Amino acid sequence: MKKILVLNGPNINMLGIREPAVYGNITLAEIEKSLSSLAKELKVEVEFFQSNHEGKIVDKIQDSINKIFGIIINPAALTHTSITIRDALSSISVPTIEVHISNIYAREEFRHKSYIAAEAIGQIAGLGIDGYLFALRKMVSLM
Amino acid sequence: MKKILVLNGPNINMLGIREPAVYGNITLAEIEKSLSSLAKELKVEVEFFQSNHEGKIVDKIQDSINKIFGIIINPAALTHTSITIRDALSSISVPTIEVHISNIYAREEFRHKSYIAAEAIGQIAGLGIDGYLFALRKMVSLM
Amino acid sequence: MKKILVLNGPNINMLGIREPAVYGNITLAEIEKSLSSLAKELKVEVEFFQSNHEGKIVDKIQDSINKIFGIIINPAALTHTSITIRDALSSISVPTIEVHISNIYAREEFRHKSYIAAEAIGQIAGLGIDGYLFALRKMVSLM
Amino acid sequence: MKKILVLNGPNINMLGIREPAVYGNITLAEIEKSLSSLAKELKVEVEFFQSNHEGKIVDKIQDSINKIFGIIINPAALTHTSITIRDALSSISVPTIEVHISNIYAREEFRHKSYIAAEAIGQIAGLGIDGYLFALRKMVSLM
Amino acid sequence: MKKILVLNGPNINMLGIREPAVYGNITLAEIEKSLSSLAKELKVEVEFFQSNHEGKIVDKIQDSINKIFGIIINPAALTHTSITIRDALSSISVPTIEVHISNIYAREEFRHKSYIAAEAIGQIAGLGIDGYLFALRKMVSLM
Amino acid sequence: MKKILVLNGPNINMLGIREPAVYGNITLAEIEKSLSSLAKELKVEVEFFQSNHEGKIVDKIQDSINKIFGIIINPAALTHTSITIRDALSSISVPTIEVHISNIYAREEFRHKSYIAAEAIGQIAGLGIDGYLFALRKMVSLM
Amino acid sequence: MKKILVLNGPNINMLGIREPAVYGNITLAEIEKSLSSLAKELKVEVEFFQSNHEGKIVDKIQDSINKIFGIIINPAALTHTSITIRDALSSISVPTIEVHISNIYAREEFRHKSYIAAEAIGQIAGLGIDGYLFALRKMVSLM
Amino acid sequence: MKKILVLNGPNINMLGIREPAVYGNITLAEIEKSLSSLAKELKVEVEFFQSNHEGKIVDKIQDSINKIFGIIINPAALTHTSITIRDALSSISVPTIEVHISNIYAREEFRHKSYIAAEAIGQIAGLGIDGYLFALRKMVSLM
Amino acid sequence: MKKILVLNGPNINMLGIREPAVYGNITLAEIEKSLSSLAKELKVEVEFFQSNHEGKIVDKIQDSINKIFGIIINPAALTHTSITIRDALSSISVPTIEVHISNIYAREEFRHKSYIAAEAIGQIAGLGIDGYLFALRKMVSLM
Amino acid sequence: MKKILVLNGPNINMLGIREPAVYGNITLAEIEKSLSSLAKELKVEVEFFQSNHEGKIVDKIQDSINKIFGIIINPAALTHTSITIRDALSSISVPTIEVHISNIYAREEFRHKSYIAAEAIGQIAGLGIDGYLFALRKMVSLM
Amino acid sequence: MKKILVLNGPNINMLGIREPAVYGNITLAEIEKSLSSLAKELKVEVEFFQSNHEGKIVDKIQDSINKIFGIIINPAALTHTSITIRDALSSISVPTIEVHISNIYAREEFRHKSYIAAEAIGQIAGLGIDGYLFALRKMVSLM
Amino acid sequence: MKKILVLNGPNINMLGIREPAVYGNITLAEIEKSLSSLAKELKVEVEFFQSNHEGKIVDKIQDSINKIFGIIINPAALTHTSITIRDALSSISVPTIEVHISNIYAREEFRHKSYIAAEAIGQIAGLGIDGYLFALRKMVSLM
Repeated sequence: MKKILVLNGPNINMLGIREPAVYGNITLAEIEKSLSSLAKELKVEVEFFQSNHEGKIVDKIQDSINKIFGIIINPAALTHTSITIRDALSSISVPTIEVHISNIYAREEFRHKSYIAAEAIGQIAGLGIDGYLFALRKMVSLM
Repeated sequence: MKKILVLNGPNINMLGIREPAVYGNITLAEIEKSLSSLAKELKVEVEFFQSNHEGKIVDKIQDSINKIFGIIINPAALTHTSITIRDALSSISVPTIEVHISNIYAREEFRHKSYIAAEAIGQIAGLGIDGYLFALRKMVSLM
Repeated sequence: MKKILVLNGPNINMLGIREPAVYGNITLAEIEKSLSSLAKELKVEVEFFQSNHEGKIVDKIQDSINKIFGIIINPAALTHTSITIRDALSSISVPTIEVHISNIYAREEFRHKSYIAAEAIGQIAGLGIDGYLFALRKMVSLM
Repeated sequence: MKKILVLNGPNINMLGIREPAVYGNITLAEIEKSLSSLAKELKVEVEFFQSNHEGKIVDKIQDSINKIFGIIINPAALTHTSITIRDALSSISVPTIEVHISNIYAREEFRHKSYIAAEAIGQIAGLGIDGYLFALRKMVSLM
Repeated sequence: MKKILVLNGPNINMLGIREPAVYGNITLAEIEKSLSSLAKELKVEVEFFQSNHEGKIVDKIQDSINKIFGIIINPAALTHTSITIRDALSSISVPTIEVHISNIYAREEFRHKSYIAAEAIGQIAGLGIDGYLFALRKMVSLM
Repeated sequence: MKKILVLNGPNINMLGIREPAVYGNITLAEIEKSLSSLAKELKVEVEFFQSNHEGKIVDKIQDSINKIFGIIINPAALTHTSITIRDALSSISVPTIEVHISNIYAREEFRHKSYIAAEAIGQIAGLGIDGYLFALRKMVSLM
Repeated sequence: MKKILVLNGPNINMLGIREPAVYGNITLAEIEKSLSSLAKELKVEVEFFQSNHEGKIVDKIQDSINKIFGIIINPAALTHTSITIRDALSSISVPTIEVHISNIYAREEFRHKSYIAAEAIGQIAGLGIDGYLFALRKMVSLM
Repeated sequence: MKKILVLNGPNINMLGIREPAVYGNITLAEIEKSLSSLAKELKVEVEFFQSNHEGKIVDKIQDSINKIFGIIINPAALTHTSITIRDALSSISVPTIEVHISNIYAREEFRHKSYIAAEAIGQIAGLGIDGYLFALRKMVSLM
Repeated sequence: MKKILVLNGPNINMLGIREPAVYGNITLAEIEKSLSSLAKELKVEVEFFQSNHEGKIVDKIQDSINKIFGIIINPAALTHTSITIRDALSSISVPTIEVHISNIYAREEFRHKSYIAAEAIGQIAGLGIDGYLFALRKMVSLM
Repeated sequence: MKKILVLNGPNINMLGIREPAVYGNITLAEIEKSLSSLAKELKVEVEFFQSNHEGKIVDKIQDSINKIFGIIINPAALTHTSITIRDALSSISVPTIEVHISNIYAREEFRHKSYIAAEAIGQIAGLGIDGYLFALRKMVSLM
Repeated sequence: MKKILVLNGPNINMLGIREPAVYGNITLAEIEKSLSSLAKELKVEVEFFQSNHEGKIVDKIQDSINKIFGIIINPAALTHTSITIRDALSSISVPTIEVHISNIYAREEFRHKSYIAAEAIGQIAGLGIDGYLFALRKMVSLM
Repeated sequence: MKKILVLNGPNINMLGIREPAVYGNITLAEIEKSLSSLAKELKVEVEFFQSNHEGKIVDKIQDSINKIFGIIINPAALTHTSITIRDALSSISVPTIEVHISNIYAREEFRHKSYIAAEAIGQIAGLGIDGYLFALRKMVSLM
């Protein structure tokens, strides 16, 4: 049974502590918990990985080759600066959905450009935790 | 019981005919049918409106004031050119979620900018019909 | 006795409802009422037209050829996107004054450019209803 | 016998009245008359449609699906602002030729960009009514 | 009885001599005379100040603190280059209306940007002397 | 009987060999042959000149002063880079029509700008050989 | 014993009155007083000069040639617009430190560029009065 | 007694070796030594952290939550490319001062933009080691 | 006998002291002396004016109306920032020649744009004092 | 005998797996094997290092100070985003040659800019593994 | 006795015929005649060369190595597009003065940038034939 | 036995004379001599062509159709301005490698863009003569 890798980028581990006005009060643990229960419901396996390190995220993507069906990724700030993660995703070319908790299009101009989106199936921004859950539903529908 | 207005912009009525490679084979009718059944499941009322006319979309948004809970809108090409629809949305200021069937970020540069997104809660792009369904789930969760 | 056409673009009909912080509480009806009384005082005839449709505004401009002395126009959001209205104005080439209720220069960057202004005598922005009244005074002074 | 649809955008109905210095004195009726006689000569059927409304032009394009061989379109000002018409054309994907009466490249900078051209076979600018006639000859040659 | 300061920037003193085609034949003296008579009519006091010196304009704005109700300012060319005057206006934060005799939007591109407008209530451009008179009427209406 | 000079720029001599997908299989010789027969039909004289050298094209334009009625020019890549040819055309100021075999607006961004078009009556792009033939018909209609 | 010239640009004289939210409540006099006492402590002489006039600031810089060791300058708004002050500083080429009371990088985009910084040793922004005091300490350390 | 974290980014560990013309001959150790002695003098605790790894800097910022009063950060090259560090700083929102040893405004254009500055109280550039010492004095004054 | 006004902008008074590498060792006095002797030779009267103040330069231009034949102006840094001086020149519209001692096109990018040049007959840059002398010769040739 | 360090950036370890259409089928191991044998032939020592981590690459560069003659680096995606690696290279200032397996100039626009190239002797792009081998030959020729 | 090469670029041979409104009625022959007589007066030798061919101009520059003292060049349209001529000038590095008959700064935007100026001592624009004569005087003064 | 054409653009003939600091002291003859001997070693035939004329380079490329295996081209300055050479290369579509003696990425901004690279296999910059030799080795490896 193929796994779905849920990748979270820098500072997502600070959810619930960081800028509640922007990110709400939910913590990464709660997000992962919800995803686990939905995964169970949808009979799929999810694996979680969060890092503040671009390199570790790339390592993780590479290590997942042939082990995962798809990737749900919230690259956080690296969305706007990391061609490296874009290339990692394109190197293992599994279905990828990009998720942003906040509506990046209602924030600073430099958050309106994503290096990742063109390599993903699609992008969900601004729907909080539901973005992750919808992405998982979508991913499962592709399996 | 408040309604959710599902607004589709120009050429969405041509779904199933138009560029299947980009938009898939699903028709607008099928999308609306799926939304209706999900709405029934979630015990909410949905109203559908599609027009090739920016003016008619604005009229429809204005007419919905005090009659709807929220708007799910796929403004199609007008996403990138219509400050008018942006202002209409901000004039009745109800929760709004922007949906794009295709991954606009994997297409021409001029489709990467949205006048609407800053006025919406969030945006879903590239997840096909599921984008509408997830938007409806999200909207209902806000009611 | 030649008429002055007062044209209002999309969402101006929502004045009094829409974003009072930006547009104040006055309604379009009240603006037109004040204009009518000033017109009476200045012994000129005014005709009012508001539409959310770029096409209807263009139709109206064209229909007014040889029937009006001048146009006072608040194209609202179309100011920044409609070369079509610019060309309509230049096609009947009557004196035109552009009016904006809010100070567009204190708002988003994309509201700082007008396609219309170069075809008008001048522009009044940010003076609320007075902008319309001053425009009418000016127009009459040109008759 | 398949028809060729000749579509004219906003303000083209004002030809002969509007800016003779730029557009010459010929009227739309005269253009359509010349096209009709050429069509007769070339044994093809032409249908004419002009509107100041982007929406009506899109409706017309959509309605023509499976009824026409090709489209000759002068989108006028919408050439530079309407991704909507571009998408309508790509949705029914029939041979399309873009025509401009005036030499748009000798006018304001904002008229030098066309959203339509990339979806058309080609573009004729600055050759007055002959642009329409040449476009018709070309279209017939493709039938 | 609080005063309204009418500030004119560089070269406005050359009105009547300078580029009549752009600025008309009226002189600054005649403008100030009309304003004085309107002020009398509206029972308010106006003070006039014109300088070719950015520094003197800033000095004057600062000296007016607590002595004036508002400022009507035509910064002329400094409109487009002086953040200094912008900051002076924001430092005494009294109601300010920006006036331009000519329609700056129909002239060179570099005259389309104003550093002042965002600090003002609004802007009147292209209505000649009437711009000053309307600004005075507006200012009085705010007193 | 005044001549019409048909000028072709760099690499047009490689037609039929070069990128058939973009330029079709027709050769320059065939184009010139068609033009000759049309010229005969229209009782005008045409002269053909093709060069890979900007300098030779300029020489040719200059040498044609007082010997030709007009110029049909496909400057090919020089369209986008040669102010020199633009100035040569403006120096002998005869009616000029710019022709491109391929639809330059459907190709790389740097082919969307023409230094020549502003000095020409008009431009035909994307209609293959017909572009030359229509240009000749137009030129003759101006004689 | 060489002097250090402390130069303050337009509107800095309004400190304590102007936008306390941005600049705090301290007045220029208090800044100069603190600088004087620190100067005394560091056994150096300071001279203060503030003007709303770009010209007077340039005059002052020029007059200081051979009379001062270095310049601490807060050009205020002129930072972003005055190549003239830049050139004055480079003409007497004494050590210069640029100081801004507010964090210009957290304010409008047009305040993020400084013509002066490239001619200075360095820049301190956002540290209020301490910016001046640190600059003085640094300057003395260079003597 | 709350600590002040002194964070140095990539290549700062090479001070004294790297480009002495730009950075002087001082080493990071000497900087930290000076800071330690000043800290002792000012009766505050400082902690030093340098890394060539964006991820480790982010980890360190996050780990410092509730353990430090403020951060003095020289992000070096990451200043211009790391939205990730910006977000880490905003997630723990403690007073932050940005320090650059060299005058980044006198170097390449790409060093003139900082993602960090808007999240900091202020920025000191070009004052060598003193920048760190002044930042520490400022930080202590805020405690 | 009409005078020729030689206007020098900010910091030109520092010639001989300022950046000899860029401006050479010649002083403004020597320039004016050479101009005087050439003027004598050419039997014309020259008047010299130098100021660090944009305002005084504008005053001087205005005062010269009807008293001078033409202006030779080296606006120095104001060349690149002063629309005010441009407008002053256009207000008295006498023949004007712009002179720069150094080759502004071999220096920083921001010195490559002149607000003045479009209002002048022409521009001489990089020829040192000879630029002034040639400008005088040219001006006299126009008298 | 000085070593030559061959540094490969993120995702180069996926060669042979990643996008064969772009990168061919060769693996990093095969590249390093070829380099080793060429090194042997040229009697020099090579050391290989690949990491997905910008930080580790910087660490490695720094650790190599005084241990290596030069660096052959393929920074992959970091080429376009990492000023940090640029600064690391400039800090140890050994001869550096930049290598790209694919022709970055035939790919997306954002791959056309390199932060590294200005600090290197030169750059080889698009010659596959030969790029590395040529770089090694060149490096040896400099020893 | 070293020669001075006077180089004229494309279309300068059409002087007197081309756009008299822009270039006046003088012919190249008259310019060269005036230069010859001035050269005689100044006891220097001048050689004239005009070509419509960038390549021939480059050949000529190269052939002149060690045969000429300096170059007076009016590259005409190539000024704005030819890095090739720039490099030719820098390859023989003799004193060069750039001359333009018309005021290029009062014409289209694309004529405001010169690839040549940075390699020249200076530039004279807009002074007609005098530009050449002044350039010759200047060149002789350098001999 | 197919030939390899080695094409050198404008000013490469001046190698050894031109800017030794940038290009070293080697002459074109020496480069060609080295290439000849390497060609002999690799048992392939090379043909050399250098011209200062864009047109002659295009002619040469075209003449080589079916006579050569591939092209090694150093277009020099034309790299950055010649779409014509790009199109010539694409018209005969033989393997092409672009070579630059100097590191164009360490020189002026306008040398960082190549019209040629996208049509080539790859590009070598900054490795002096070795660039040519490596290109030849690579070309032979493709035969």
